[in-house]
Amino acid sequence: MKVGHVPEGLFEFAASKELILRLKHNTDIVQSIAEFAGSKGVKAGNFTAIGALKRAELGYYDQTNHEYRKIGIDSPYELASCVGNISLKDGEPFVHAHAVLSDEKGNTRAGHLLEGIVFAAEVHLTQLEGPKLERKYDEVTGLWLWNME
Amino acid sequence: MKVGHVPEGLFEFAASKELILRLKHNTDIVQSIAEFAGSKGVKAGNFTAIGALKRAELGYYDQTNHEYRKIGIDSPYELASCVGNISLKDGEPFVHAHAVLSDEKGNTRAGHLLEGIVFAAEVHLTQLEGPKLERKYDEVTGLWLWNME
Amino acid sequence: MKVGHVPEGLFEFAASKELILRLKHNTDIVQSIAEFAGSKGVKAGNFTAIGALKRAELGYYDQTNHEYRKIGIDSPYELASCVGNISLKDGEPFVHAHAVLSDEKGNTRAGHLLEGIVFAAEVHLTQLEGPKLERKYDEVTGLWLWNME
Repeated sequence: MKVGHVPEGLFEFAASKELILRLKHNTDIVQSIAEFAGSKGVKAGNFTAIGALKRAELGYYDQTNHEYRKIGIDSPYELASCVGNISLKDGEPFVHAHAVLSDEKGNTRAGHLLEGIVFAAEVHLTQLEGPKLERKYDEVTGLWLWNME
Repeated sequence: MKVGHVPEGLFEFAASKELILRLKHNTDIVQSIAEFAGSKGVKAGNFTAIGALKRAELGYYDQTNHEYRKIGIDSPYELASCVGNISLKDGEPFVHAHAVLSDEKGNTRAGHLLEGIVFAAEVHLTQLEGPKLERKYDEVTGLWLWNME
Repeated sequence: MKVGHVPEGLFEFAASKELILRLKHNTDIVQSIAEFAGSKGVKAGNFTAIGALKRAELGYYDQTNHEYRKIGIDSPYELASCVGNISLKDGEPFVHAHAVLSDEKGNTRAGHLLEGIVFAAEVHLTQLEGPKLERKYDEVTGLWLWNME
Protein backbone atom coordinates (compact mmCIF):
# COMPACT_ATOMS: atom_id res chain seq x y z
CA MET A 1 0.00 0.00 0.00
CA LYS A 2 1.37 3.36 -1.02
CA VAL A 3 0.71 6.10 1.50
CA GLY A 4 0.51 9.72 0.31
CA HIS A 5 3.26 11.90 1.68
CA VAL A 6 1.07 14.70 2.97
CA PRO A 7 1.78 15.67 6.60
CA GLU A 8 -0.67 14.58 9.28
CA GLY A 9 -1.00 18.18 10.36
CA LEU A 10 0.33 21.68 9.90
CA PHE A 11 0.14 24.79 12.07
CA GLU A 12 1.37 28.22 11.05
CA PHE A 13 3.00 30.47 13.64
CA ALA A 14 4.75 33.80 13.89
CA ALA A 15 8.09 33.97 15.72
CA SER A 16 7.35 36.34 18.57
CA LYS A 17 10.74 36.36 20.25
CA GLU A 18 14.20 34.93 19.72
CA LEU A 19 15.46 33.99 23.18
CA ILE A 20 19.03 33.27 24.20
CA LEU A 21 19.42 31.36 27.47
CA ARG A 22 22.45 30.39 29.48
CA LEU A 23 21.42 27.47 31.66
CA LYS A 24 22.56 27.20 35.25
CA HIS A 25 25.39 24.85 36.22
CA ASN A 26 24.09 21.61 37.83
CA THR A 27 20.47 22.00 36.71
CA ASP A 28 18.63 19.61 34.40
CA ILE A 29 18.41 20.94 30.86
CA VAL A 30 14.92 19.51 30.23
CA GLN A 31 13.45 20.81 33.50
CA SER A 32 15.20 24.17 33.12
CA ILE A 33 13.63 24.83 29.75
CA ALA A 34 10.22 23.56 30.88
CA GLU A 35 10.24 25.73 34.01
CA PHE A 36 11.44 28.70 32.02
CA ALA A 37 8.60 28.21 29.52
CA GLY A 38 6.08 27.95 32.35
CA SER A 39 7.33 31.11 34.07
CA LYS A 40 7.39 33.16 30.86
CA GLY A 41 4.21 31.87 29.27
CA VAL A 42 5.91 30.16 26.34
CA LYS A 43 3.29 27.74 24.99
CA ALA A 44 4.99 26.80 21.72
CA GLY A 45 8.56 26.99 20.54
CA ASN A 46 11.53 25.31 19.02
CA PHE A 47 15.12 25.29 20.25
CA THR A 48 18.67 24.15 19.66
CA ALA A 49 21.36 23.88 22.32
CA ILE A 50 25.07 23.14 22.62
CA GLY A 51 27.34 22.80 25.64
CA ALA A 52 28.52 20.07 27.97
CA LEU A 53 26.73 17.75 30.41
CA LYS A 54 28.01 16.19 33.63
CA ARG A 55 25.75 13.19 33.14
CA ALA A 56 22.56 12.35 31.32
CA GLU A 57 19.79 9.86 30.73
CA LEU A 58 18.80 9.09 27.16
CA GLY A 59 15.82 7.14 25.88
CA TYR A 60 15.09 4.82 22.99
CA TYR A 61 11.46 4.17 22.16
CA ASP A 62 10.63 0.53 21.48
CA GLN A 63 8.30 0.88 18.51
CA THR A 64 6.85 -2.62 19.00
CA ASN A 65 6.30 -2.72 22.76
CA HIS A 66 5.56 1.00 23.04
CA GLU A 67 7.87 1.76 25.94
CA TYR A 68 11.02 3.82 26.49
CA ARG A 69 14.26 2.06 27.32
CA LYS A 70 16.55 4.19 29.44
CA ILE A 71 20.22 4.63 28.62
CA GLY A 72 22.30 5.97 31.52
CA ILE A 73 25.23 8.23 30.69
CA ASP A 74 27.21 8.49 33.91
CA SER A 75 30.24 10.53 32.87
CA PRO A 76 30.85 13.98 31.33
CA TYR A 77 29.98 14.39 27.66
CA GLU A 78 29.88 17.24 25.18
CA LEU A 79 26.35 18.18 24.13
CA ALA A 80 27.21 17.91 20.43
CA SER A 81 23.65 18.55 19.31
CA CYS A 82 20.32 19.19 20.95
CA VAL A 83 17.12 19.87 19.00
CA GLY A 84 13.82 20.25 20.80
CA ASN A 85 10.41 21.80 20.97
CA ILE A 86 7.93 23.16 23.48
CA SER A 87 4.20 22.46 23.33
CA LEU A 88 1.43 21.83 25.84
CA LYS A 89 0.67 18.55 27.60
CA ASP A 90 -2.23 18.55 30.06
CA GLY A 91 -2.23 22.33 29.70
CA GLU A 92 1.38 22.77 30.87
CA PRO A 93 4.53 23.52 28.80
CA PHE A 94 6.18 20.24 27.87
CA VAL A 95 9.72 19.87 26.49
CA HIS A 96 10.51 17.23 23.87
CA ALA A 97 14.22 17.11 23.08
CA HIS A 98 16.71 14.79 21.41
CA ALA A 99 20.45 14.97 21.93
CA VAL A 100 23.77 13.72 20.58
CA LEU A 101 26.54 13.42 23.17
CA SER A 102 30.27 12.90 22.58
CA ASP A 103 33.15 11.72 24.74
CA GLU A 104 36.89 12.42 24.89
CA LYS A 105 37.55 10.27 21.82
CA GLY A 106 34.75 11.94 19.87
CA ASN A 107 32.60 8.81 20.17
CA THR A 108 28.87 9.41 20.44
CA ARG A 109 25.69 8.36 22.25
CA ALA A 110 22.34 9.78 21.29
CA GLY A 111 18.59 9.55 21.79
CA HIS A 112 15.55 11.10 23.39
CA LEU A 113 16.81 13.38 26.17
CA LEU A 114 15.19 12.37 29.46
CA GLU A 115 17.66 14.23 31.69
CA GLY A 116 20.91 16.13 31.20
CA ILE A 117 22.78 17.75 34.06
CA VAL A 118 24.31 20.98 32.81
CA PHE A 119 28.03 21.70 33.02
CA ALA A 120 27.43 24.60 30.60
CA ALA A 121 24.64 25.03 28.06
CA GLU A 122 23.70 27.68 25.51
CA VAL A 123 20.14 27.62 24.18
CA HIS A 124 18.53 29.44 21.26
CA LEU A 125 14.74 29.28 21.62
CA THR A 126 12.29 30.64 19.06
CA GLN A 127 9.05 31.44 20.87
CA LEU A 128 6.06 30.85 18.59
CA GLU A 129 2.69 32.62 18.68
CA GLY A 130 -0.30 31.03 17.01
CA PRO A 131 -2.67 28.09 17.35
CA LYS A 132 -2.80 25.91 20.44
CA LEU A 133 -0.18 23.19 20.08
CA GLU A 134 -1.22 20.44 22.46
CA ARG A 135 -0.21 16.80 22.85
CA LYS A 136 -2.75 13.99 22.84
CA TYR A 137 -2.32 10.25 23.22
CA ASP A 138 -1.90 8.54 19.85
CA GLU A 139 -3.06 4.91 19.66
CA VAL A 140 -0.92 3.99 16.65
CA THR A 141 2.43 4.86 18.23
CA GLY A 142 1.64 4.89 21.94
CA LEU A 143 3.15 8.39 22.05
CA TRP A 144 1.72 11.78 23.01
CA LEU A 145 1.76 13.49 19.64
CA TRP A 146 0.48 16.89 18.55
CA ASN A 147 -3.27 17.15 18.15
CA MET A 148 -3.62 18.93 14.82
CA GLU A 149 -7.24 18.21 13.98
CA MET B 1 47.95 28.47 -1.04
CA LYS B 2 45.97 30.30 1.58
CA VAL B 3 42.31 30.78 0.68
CA GLY B 4 40.39 33.71 2.15
CA HIS B 5 37.53 32.69 4.40
CA VAL B 6 34.83 34.73 2.70
CA PRO B 7 31.69 32.71 1.83
CA GLU B 8 31.13 31.74 -1.79
CA GLY B 9 27.73 33.38 -1.62
CA LEU B 10 25.20 35.00 0.66
CA PHE B 11 21.48 35.60 0.30
CA GLU B 12 19.36 37.59 2.73
CA PHE B 13 15.81 36.46 3.48
CA ALA B 14 12.91 37.33 5.72
CA ALA B 15 11.23 34.57 7.71
CA SER B 16 7.69 34.64 6.37
CA LYS B 17 6.21 31.82 8.44
CA GLU B 18 7.23 29.46 11.20
CA LEU B 19 5.61 26.12 10.36
CA ILE B 20 5.10 23.19 12.70
CA LEU B 21 4.43 19.86 10.97
CA ARG B 22 3.55 16.45 12.29
CA LEU B 23 4.50 13.94 9.62
CA LYS B 24 2.28 11.00 8.80
CA HIS B 25 3.13 7.52 10.09
CA ASN B 26 4.72 5.33 7.37
CA THR B 27 5.56 8.16 4.98
CA ASP B 28 9.08 9.13 3.89
CA ILE B 29 10.33 12.19 5.74
CA VAL B 30 12.23 13.58 2.71
CA GLN B 31 9.34 13.15 0.27
CA SER B 32 6.81 14.42 2.83
CA ILE B 33 8.62 17.70 3.28
CA ALA B 34 9.27 18.07 -0.47
CA GLU B 35 5.62 17.43 -1.36
CA PHE B 36 4.48 19.77 1.39
CA ALA B 37 6.78 22.49 0.06
CA GLY B 38 5.46 21.95 -3.46
CA SER B 39 1.82 22.11 -2.39
CA LYS B 40 2.30 25.24 -0.26
CA GLY B 41 4.67 27.13 -2.54
CA VAL B 42 7.63 27.01 -0.17
CA LYS B 43 10.64 27.80 -2.38
CA ALA B 44 13.23 28.35 0.34
CA GLY B 45 13.41 27.26 3.95
CA ASN B 46 15.33 25.64 6.73
CA PHE B 47 14.15 22.97 9.15
CA THR B 48 14.98 20.78 12.09
CA ALA B 49 13.19 17.57 13.03
CA ILE B 50 13.13 14.98 15.81
CA GLY B 51 11.21 11.73 16.18
CA ALA B 52 11.67 8.07 15.35
CA LEU B 53 12.09 6.18 12.08
CA LYS B 54 11.08 2.62 11.21
CA ARG B 55 13.95 2.33 8.75
CA ALA B 56 16.13 4.66 6.70
CA GLU B 57 18.72 5.02 3.99
CA LEU B 58 21.69 7.27 4.65
CA GLY B 59 24.33 8.48 2.22
CA TYR B 60 28.03 9.26 2.35
CA TYR B 61 29.48 11.31 -0.47
CA ASP B 62 32.76 10.01 -1.81
CA GLN B 63 34.68 13.27 -2.27
CA THR B 64 37.20 11.68 -4.65
CA ASN B 65 34.94 9.63 -6.92
CA HIS B 66 32.01 12.05 -6.68
CA GLU B 67 29.33 9.51 -5.92
CA TYR B 68 27.04 8.71 -3.00
CA ARG B 69 27.49 5.44 -1.14
CA LYS B 70 24.24 4.19 0.36
CA ILE B 71 24.01 2.99 3.94
CA GLY B 72 20.90 0.92 4.69
CA ILE B 73 19.37 1.20 8.14
CA ASP B 74 16.90 -1.67 8.35
CA SER B 75 15.64 -1.44 11.93
CA PRO B 76 13.92 1.20 14.09
CA TYR B 77 16.04 4.14 15.21
CA GLU B 78 15.45 7.38 17.05
CA LEU B 79 15.80 10.45 14.84
CA ALA B 80 18.26 12.09 17.24
CA SER B 81 18.91 15.04 14.96
CA CYS B 82 17.76 16.18 11.55
CA VAL B 83 18.84 19.46 9.97
CA GLY B 84 17.79 20.34 6.45
CA ASN B 85 16.89 22.96 3.93
CA ILE B 86 14.54 23.56 1.00
CA SER B 87 15.62 25.22 -2.24
CA LEU B 88 14.81 24.79 -5.92
CA LYS B 89 16.29 22.18 -8.26
CA ASP B 90 15.06 22.24 -11.86
CA GLY B 91 12.40 24.67 -10.66
CA GLU B 92 10.90 22.30 -8.08
CA PRO B 93 11.29 22.32 -4.27
CA PHE B 94 14.19 20.09 -3.31
CA VAL B 95 14.94 18.84 0.22
CA HIS B 96 18.53 18.47 1.41
CA ALA B 97 18.70 16.90 4.87
CA HIS B 98 21.23 15.25 7.13
CA ALA B 99 20.33 13.04 10.08
CA VAL B 100 21.77 11.37 13.16
CA LEU B 101 20.02 8.13 14.18
CA SER B 102 20.37 6.22 17.46
CA ASP B 103 19.56 2.68 18.54
CA GLU B 104 18.50 1.00 21.79
CA LYS B 105 22.03 1.27 23.24
CA GLY B 106 22.31 4.93 22.23
CA ASN B 107 24.76 4.04 19.47
CA THR B 108 24.56 6.20 16.37
CA ARG B 109 24.59 6.17 12.57
CA ALA B 110 24.49 9.37 10.56
CA GLY B 111 24.77 10.93 7.13
CA HIS B 112 22.94 12.48 4.23
CA LEU B 113 19.28 11.45 4.58
CA LEU B 114 18.13 9.71 1.39
CA GLU B 115 15.02 8.14 2.92
CA GLY B 116 13.51 7.84 6.37
CA ILE B 117 10.23 6.04 7.02
CA VAL B 118 8.38 7.89 9.76
CA PHE B 119 7.27 6.22 12.99
CA ALA B 120 6.66 9.70 14.40
CA ALA B 121 8.27 13.01 13.38
CA GLU B 122 7.98 16.62 14.50
CA VAL B 123 9.29 19.27 12.12
CA HIS B 124 9.94 22.99 12.63
CA LEU B 125 10.26 24.68 9.25
CA THR B 126 11.14 28.34 8.76
CA GLN B 127 9.75 29.43 5.40
CA LEU B 128 12.01 32.06 3.81
CA GLU B 129 10.99 34.83 1.42
CA GLY B 130 13.61 36.50 -0.74
CA PRO B 131 15.91 35.83 -3.67
CA LYS B 132 15.62 32.73 -5.82
CA LEU B 133 17.63 29.96 -4.17
CA GLU B 134 18.33 27.43 -6.90
CA ARG B 135 20.74 24.52 -7.22
CA LYS B 136 23.17 24.23 -10.10
CA TYR B 137 25.75 21.57 -10.92
CA ASP B 138 29.15 22.38 -9.42
CA GLU B 139 32.16 20.98 -11.27
CA VAL B 140 34.53 21.15 -8.30
CA THR B 141 32.48 18.92 -6.00
CA GLY B 142 30.19 17.08 -8.42
CA LEU B 143 27.27 18.28 -6.27
CA TRP B 144 24.24 20.43 -7.02
CA LEU B 145 25.09 23.49 -4.92
CA TRP B 146 23.34 26.83 -4.58
CA ASN B 147 23.82 29.21 -7.48
CA MET B 148 24.61 32.48 -5.73
CA GLU B 149 26.10 34.49 -8.59
CA MET C 1 21.32 20.43 47.74
CA LYS C 2 18.54 20.93 45.22
CA VAL C 3 19.23 23.67 42.72
CA GLY C 4 16.30 25.54 41.18
CA HIS C 5 15.98 25.11 37.45
CA VAL C 6 15.82 28.76 36.53
CA PRO C 7 18.28 29.75 33.77
CA GLU C 8 21.39 31.70 34.75
CA GLY C 9 20.42 34.35 32.24
CA LEU C 10 18.03 35.28 29.47
CA PHE C 11 18.22 37.82 26.67
CA GLU C 12 15.41 38.64 24.28
CA PHE C 13 16.20 39.40 20.64
CA ALA C 14 14.44 40.08 17.37
CA ALA C 15 15.48 38.13 14.28
CA SER C 16 16.69 40.86 11.97
CA LYS C 17 17.70 38.74 9.01
CA GLU C 18 17.63 35.12 7.92
CA LEU C 19 20.90 34.53 6.06
CA ILE C 20 21.71 31.65 3.74
CA LEU C 21 25.42 31.10 3.11
CA ARG C 22 27.28 28.76 0.84
CA LEU C 23 30.78 28.41 2.24
CA LYS C 24 33.81 28.34 -0.03
CA HIS C 25 35.55 25.06 -0.85
CA ASN C 26 38.77 24.58 1.18
CA THR C 27 38.05 27.27 3.78
CA ASP C 28 37.59 26.64 7.50
CA ILE C 29 33.92 26.65 8.50
CA VAL C 30 34.56 28.29 11.89
CA GLN C 31 36.77 31.06 10.50
CA SER C 32 34.47 31.59 7.51
CA ILE C 33 31.48 32.29 9.70
CA ALA C 34 33.51 34.44 12.11
CA GLU C 35 34.98 36.54 9.29
CA PHE C 36 31.57 36.85 7.66
CA ALA C 37 30.07 38.06 10.95
CA GLY C 38 32.88 40.57 11.36
CA SER C 39 32.49 41.94 7.83
CA LYS C 40 28.69 42.24 8.08
CA GLY C 41 28.43 43.50 11.65
CA VAL C 42 26.68 40.40 12.99
CA LYS C 43 27.12 40.61 16.76
CA ALA C 44 24.68 37.89 17.80
CA GLY C 45 23.20 34.98 15.96
CA ASN C 46 22.46 31.30 15.82
CA PHE C 47 23.09 28.88 12.97
CA THR C 48 22.79 25.35 11.68
CA ALA C 49 24.85 23.84 8.87
CA ILE C 50 25.08 20.65 6.83
CA GLY C 51 27.53 19.54 4.16
CA ALA C 52 30.79 17.65 3.97
CA LEU C 53 34.27 18.30 5.37
CA LYS C 54 37.67 17.27 3.99
CA ARG C 55 39.13 17.09 7.47
CA ALA C 56 38.40 18.54 10.90
CA GLU C 57 39.54 19.04 14.46
CA LEU C 58 37.06 18.38 17.23
CA GLY C 59 37.37 19.17 20.92
CA TYR C 60 36.27 17.59 24.18
CA TYR C 61 36.33 19.74 27.27
CA ASP C 62 37.79 18.05 30.33
CA GLN C 63 35.38 19.24 33.02
CA THR C 64 37.81 18.42 35.84
CA ASN C 65 41.07 19.79 34.46
CA HIS C 66 39.42 22.62 32.54
CA GLU C 67 41.19 22.07 29.25
CA TYR C 68 40.21 21.04 25.72
CA ARG C 69 41.46 17.75 24.35
CA LYS C 70 41.84 17.83 20.59
CA ILE C 71 40.51 15.05 18.37
CA GLY C 72 41.98 15.04 14.86
CA ILE C 73 39.74 13.91 12.01
CA ASP C 74 42.09 13.40 9.07
CA SER C 75 39.78 12.02 6.39
CA PRO C 76 36.59 13.18 4.61
CA TYR C 77 33.38 13.11 6.66
CA GLU C 78 29.81 14.20 6.16
CA LEU C 79 28.84 17.15 8.32
CA ALA C 80 25.77 15.36 9.68
CA SER C 81 24.90 18.16 12.10
CA CYS C 82 26.33 21.51 13.05
CA VAL C 83 24.70 23.82 15.58
CA GLY C 84 26.39 27.05 16.60
CA ASN C 85 26.10 30.61 17.73
CA ILE C 86 27.77 33.99 17.31
CA SER C 87 28.43 36.37 20.19
CA LEU C 88 31.20 38.77 21.14
CA LYS C 89 34.50 37.89 22.80
CA ASP C 90 36.89 40.76 23.48
CA GLY C 91 34.59 42.89 21.33
CA GLU C 92 34.92 40.71 18.22
CA PRO C 93 32.43 38.20 16.74
CA PHE C 94 33.21 34.76 18.12
CA VAL C 95 31.82 31.48 16.76
CA HIS C 96 30.94 28.63 19.11
CA ALA C 97 29.91 25.50 17.19
CA HIS C 98 29.44 21.80 17.81
CA ALA C 99 29.36 19.18 15.06
CA VAL C 100 28.52 15.56 14.37
CA LEU C 101 30.53 13.95 11.56
CA SER C 102 29.87 10.64 9.79
CA ASP C 103 31.98 8.34 7.64
CA GLU C 104 31.30 5.93 4.77
CA LYS C 105 29.79 3.34 7.12
CA GLY C 106 27.60 5.95 8.81
CA ASN C 107 29.76 5.82 11.93
CA THR C 108 30.10 9.08 13.82
CA ARG C 109 32.53 11.37 15.63
CA ALA C 110 31.38 14.52 17.35
CA GLY C 111 32.34 17.37 19.61
CA HIS C 112 33.21 21.03 19.87
CA LEU C 113 34.19 22.16 16.35
CA LEU C 114 37.69 23.68 16.44
CA GLU C 115 38.27 23.49 12.68
CA GLY C 116 36.49 21.99 9.70
CA ILE C 117 37.81 22.29 6.16
CA VAL C 118 34.87 22.69 3.80
CA PHE C 119 34.22 20.33 0.91
CA ALA C 120 30.73 21.84 0.66
CA ALA C 121 28.68 23.55 3.37
CA GLU C 122 25.25 25.16 3.56
CA VAL C 123 24.58 27.47 6.49
CA HIS C 124 21.34 28.99 7.79
CA LEU C 125 22.16 31.89 10.12
CA THR C 126 19.58 33.86 12.06
CA GLN C 127 21.04 37.30 12.78
CA LEU C 128 19.78 38.62 16.12
CA GLU C 129 19.31 42.25 17.15
CA GLY C 130 19.10 43.15 20.81
CA PRO C 131 21.22 43.31 23.94
CA LYS C 132 25.00 42.96 23.89
CA LEU C 133 25.83 39.26 24.05
CA GLU C 134 29.42 39.08 25.26
CA ARG C 135 31.56 36.28 26.65
CA LYS C 136 33.34 36.56 29.98
CA TYR C 137 35.59 34.13 31.83
CA ASP C 138 33.61 31.89 34.19
CA GLU C 139 35.51 30.60 37.23
CA VAL C 140 33.23 27.61 37.84
CA THR C 141 33.70 25.99 34.44
CA GLY C 142 36.90 27.60 33.17
CA LEU C 143 34.96 28.55 30.02
CA TRP C 144 34.14 31.88 28.42
CA LEU C 145 30.38 31.96 28.95
CA TRP C 146 27.81 34.65 28.19
CA ASN C 147 27.78 37.55 30.62
CA MET C 148 24.08 37.98 31.32
CA GLU C 149 24.18 40.11 34.46
